Amino acid sequence: MQSLQAKASEWSGVKQDDAFAIDDTNLFQKLGLQTFINLSTNFYTRVYDDEEEWFRSIFANSKKEDAIQNQYEFFVQRMGGPPLYSQRRGHPALIARHRPFPVTHRAAERWLHHMQQALDGTTDIDTDSKVRMMNFFRHTAFFLVAGDELKSQNQQPQCKHGSSKPDSV
Amino acid sequence: MQSLQAKASEWSGVKQDDAFAIDDTNLFQKLGLQTFINLSTNFYTRVYDDEEEWFRSIFANSKKEDAIQNQYEFFVQRMGGPPLYSQRRGHPALIARHRPFPVTHRAAERWLHHMQQALDGTTDIDTDSKVRMMNFFRHTAFFLVAGDELKSQNQQPQCKHGSSKPDSV
Repeated sequence: MQSLQAKASEWSGVKQDDAFAIDDTNLFQKLGLQTFINLSTNFYTRVYDDEEEWFRSIFANSKKEDAIQNQYEFFVQRMGGPPLYSQRRGHPALIARHRPFPVTHRAAERWLHHMQQALDGTTDIDTDSKVRMMNFFRHTAFFLVAGDELKSQNQQPQCKHGSSKPDSV
Repeated sequence: MQSLQAKASEWSGVKQDDAFAIDDTNLFQKLGLQTFINLSTNFYTRVYDDEEEWFRSIFANSKKEDAIQNQYEFFVQRMGGPPLYSQRRGHPALIARHRPFPVTHRAAERWLHHMQQALDGTTDIDTDSKVRMMNFFRHTAFFLVAGDELKSQNQQPQCKHGSSKPDSV
């Protein structure tokens, strides 16, 4: 079975190294907390107002302010800042926490469309940081699409497990 | 629905703050790469030689050297060192990557038993670091037990989804 990260690279078109080039610099120190708060606020303002109802409805059971906090705390933690997310919620466990949502290829592309707009609409994010972040986001979005497909392994007609090769930590 | 991290705290007896006290100090800088390699080597040497076949068999499809590398690279990354794990494999996605394994309460306790022995048998790990790491490991083990239970939500007799409240990022 192709690994989650191999699927993510293939579907996103972003190589693993480019996706994790966010780690070659400390984006939190460069951009600061307020920029991450602004980015997530801009992003979810777009998402919750999305004219495409199929996408907007994915978030219908979550409060906008919670979605914003969850997102910027994760970004801050992952991009060199204090572990705000884990202090409050534990491990990110990205795939498991996206389990209730239909993370399709189409949903990934819509998410990325809004994130590109949000990045472009947030002041104080330089071009180099934008490129690093979009590569990370694009790879991660399709990593989650790959993770979403694991769910269907348990939805065979006879309720059998899919035969999944261990992908251990 | 109780959150993954709430279940982890309840079942492990380790509070969230104590579990993530690994972030109050930089354990990688304190202990160094070789100590983490030694720890994971000690741990998996015990696991692959476990006299309890039910536990040893969980790892039967993974190579011991791969298991060691996956583990110490994750520990190094999570405890203040370079992002070795993500550079090679992407997001840890702890719950999803443990999906092929039966992470029961009993398996968590057996894992922790071996880890305690491995910590005690690894030189150059001071008591304070051991306590922080065991709290993190204990909480995380039961976080994964909580994650394991998500699988059964898709294994109802009629193949219906469980009704899971979104637990978004």
